[in-house]
Amino acid sequence: MRILGIDPGLQVCGYACLEADRDTERLIEAGVFKTSSDLSIEAKLNQIAEDVDLLLEKLRPGMVAVEQLYSHYTHPRTAILMGHARGVILQRCAQAGIEVKSFSATRIKKSITGNGRASKEQIQKTIQTILSLPQLPEPSDVADAIAAALCCANEVSNILVGGASPTLQSQK
Amino acid sequence: MRILGIDPGLQVCGYACLEADRDTERLIEAGVFKTSSDLSIEAKLNQIAEDVDLLLEKLRPGMVAVEQLYSHYTHPRTAILMGHARGVILQRCAQAGIEVKSFSATRIKKSITGNGRASKEQIQKTIQTILSLPQLPEPSDVADAIAAALCCANEVSNILVGGASPTLQSQK
Repeated sequence: MRILGIDPGLQVCGYACLEADRDTERLIEAGVFKTSSDLSIEAKLNQIAEDVDLLLEKLRPGMVAVEQLYSHYTHPRTAILMGHARGVILQRCAQAGIEVKSFSATRIKKSITGNGRASKEQIQKTIQTILSLPQLPEPSDVADAIAAALCCANEVSNILVGGASPTLQSQK
Repeated sequence: MRILGIDPGLQVCGYACLEADRDTERLIEAGVFKTSSDLSIEAKLNQIAEDVDLLLEKLRPGMVAVEQLYSHYTHPRTAILMGHARGVILQRCAQAGIEVKSFSATRIKKSITGNGRASKEQIQKTIQTILSLPQLPEPSDVADAIAAALCCANEVSNILVGGASPTLQSQK
């Protein structure tokens, strides 16, 4: 199963595509797409839509994984703007007929490190180990996208092997 | 100038299309489009995108007016979800090459009634008077969409006649 993790943002979106089998995950491609700072918000959103369309077309994932936004209450303005970008990303996935899975930040951390309160650095190091990367995943947008995709791979694998998956959080 | 006001929501979006000349505004069409409650968030967003595309195609507005979301800090979860819908609406407008104007709730109220803290009922009554409607505009999603479009018509008319428009708030 090919899983595309996306970390939504109005200025920068991170993405990471994994090939996930029952026990192993392999990183196919990761990167960021950025919007020009001098554009209006609607033009930025349109650029994001075009970039997502290109990614889906090129990478052809079977599933897209994103982080939930509800945990960002402390910066409501940022969370609302990220919501704009996230909405566009989800819509483009639906339009392309690709299933989307949403996971809370805590769920992602717990799925990768076993600890829902793991630090950014712990997440990065665990990702580096799991995927045998030559260096720590960076920038943080890419690390977050990989983390969402890895969490999704773990959850899907749990379902496939009939393991414990009562906590799968699909944002329906 | 034909102006389409949209009141974004994940369950219900209100819309209202005005034909605005220098001094008068006429209501062409208004209504709501709803999403099925049993759909996933991405499917709802896709339904909204399709409905917006149809509206833009049918009504061919020269400008779209929406309310800013930043004032909804007291209900961050709702504001974030509305942000998803708003993001999709703005992106579809940009994709169609239609200019978008965003106005704060206070600005809209002030533009219509002269009072930035006007009540919902005062807004409805003023709208009814300005547009010579047989009854109060309802539901609230439609009233809010008309209000955004009327505010936009006032601002644009101010610019056209070279009047005071230092407070025009375009969300760039």
